[in-house]
Amino acid sequence: MSIQVQAVQQAFRGQTVLDNLNLTIKPNTIYGLLGRNGAGKSTLLNIISNRIFADSGTVTMDNESMCDNDRTLGKVYLMSEVNLYSERSRVKQLFKTTALLYGDFNDTYAKKLAQTFGLDLNARFGKLSTGYRTIFKLIIALCVPAEYIFLDEPVLGLDANHREIFYQELIETYSDHPRTFVISTHLIEEITNLIEHVFVLDHHHIIVDGDVTDILGQSYAVTGPQTDVSTYTDGLNIIGKDHLGGITAHYVYGPLDNDRPIPDTVTVEHLDLQKLFVNLTNTKEEAAAHVN
Amino acid sequence: MSIQVQAVQQAFRGQTVLDNLNLTIKPNTIYGLLGRNGAGKSTLLNIISNRIFADSGTVTMDNESMCDNDRTLGKVYLMSEVNLYSERSRVKQLFKTTALLYGDFNDTYAKKLAQTFGLDLNARFGKLSTGYRTIFKLIIALCVPAEYIFLDEPVLGLDANHREIFYQELIETYSDHPRTFVISTHLIEEITNLIEHVFVLDHHHIIVDGDVTDILGQSYAVTGPQTDVSTYTDGLNIIGKDHLGGITAHYVYGPLDNDRPIPDTVTVEHLDLQKLFVNLTNTKEEAAAHVN
Repeated sequence: MSIQVQAVQQAFRGQTVLDNLNLTIKPNTIYGLLGRNGAGKSTLLNIISNRIFADSGTVTMDNESMCDNDRTLGKVYLMSEVNLYSERSRVKQLFKTTALLYGDFNDTYAKKLAQTFGLDLNARFGKLSTGYRTIFKLIIALCVPAEYIFLDEPVLGLDANHREIFYQELIETYSDHPRTFVISTHLIEEITNLIEHVFVLDHHHIIVDGDVTDILGQSYAVTGPQTDVSTYTDGLNIIGKDHLGGITAHYVYGPLDNDRPIPDTVTVEHLDLQKLFVNLTNTKEEAAAHVN
Repeated sequence: MSIQVQAVQQAFRGQTVLDNLNLTIKPNTIYGLLGRNGAGKSTLLNIISNRIFADSGTVTMDNESMCDNDRTLGKVYLMSEVNLYSERSRVKQLFKTTALLYGDFNDTYAKKLAQTFGLDLNARFGKLSTGYRTIFKLIIALCVPAEYIFLDEPVLGLDANHREIFYQELIETYSDHPRTFVISTHLIEEITNLIEHVFVLDHHHIIVDGDVTDILGQSYAVTGPQTDVSTYTDGLNIIGKDHLGGITAHYVYGPLDNDRPIPDTVTVEHLDLQKLFVNLTNTKEEAAAHVN
């Protein structure tokens, strides 16, 4: 029972946001959805959750359209950046309303999480700080009985301790009761060990779609004197370069040339996911800004 | 010309937020203001910027009250989490309005920054994503002619590349034209090298107020077999503990005992700012959650 996104196309006022997008989201998997500010991550999540309609293309669950389909949509939950809650409602009232909407809302877990995060059940939603609004929405997302849960910026405004609690609770609830989470975040290094599969959305397309271990296995930093590095990486897929003093680094995504010996002066190491992402999605203007 | 916060007291509906708070903000210095979610950082910044009034206590600039004082308030700018802008206004109109309000608004720099960050000058504020709303507010904060600039969550929703651009631009504009920045953020490790002085707000009080180098100089991780670590740290100011397999870590804030030899089995290293902060501000419930 997978979700299939096929040939999805979306534009706003003549500007392309998503261009012929295809991807598959499988059951019981934790995904990362990465992309620059404005890349269209929220738009994609809104389309999958039927909150907005794509200009063309389809979103299906086992060949059944998810568009205005109560049966499939009950299986999907989107925690979004938008605050849909009444400013005057109290946290405990909003938990109750959600429980009425979703028959199997886990009220016990919600109350336990509220205590762990220090969220006051009597506070009004409108009086919560940025961080606590996120915490409130996170708790609901972890307690609804959906099989596909989309978390759009789940740690927005959260302090380091609260982020750590969230990651631990996610692992725990996933182990107790496996389901699919798709996490869209800018704190990439913090989720690397949580996610199994990563999508990178850039310039309207999915440019990376794969297993995290496989992807990091073919991401390299080649460091050393400029001439030696350039000779070694010639013809490889260089996605970025750095220079510091007399040392040059070339970042390579894709296979190395196994016939080519690594010079003694050159070090080859794997990149982490954040560094890979930054290099894959860096634009030329910014690369220039980095050098200035 | 420093800002003095003296004996500031603030409560909301009977709950203490700030309790007898004292601090000094000096000219031409970059500060970090750290605190857990809900610690009262935004409240403090709002009081200093005269957006809300403290229940008691004073905020002065060279002994002159900053409360409703046009002369001192023109020197202060708060970039806040709240979005005060009309949803329908375009970015370029909002820049113009700001320039009219602030005589010396640096319009050239604002346009250059908009280009570097990829902010569309024709976009309406209401159509900007979370990240681009932050970018828009950041640009204004960097271009107003204030001498004290308070940045409340300046990287909220920013991707890794945009955060890096912001840190570099901050250093550059500060070098060109020194003034004071107070940065309130949850991405502590990213600002450690930017800030000179740090305030930590916890449970209504400032619990750390000092030079970053001095503070990290007296923050230690003592690691090794449990018995040896406990013997070595006995009587020191232990702010946190970790256990992993047979290894124990005690985190110490404050002087070590120089008369006490370090056992061969024990390693003593300095903590980074994020780790120090997490241990100083961790509550017991959460410490338990971390262990579970």
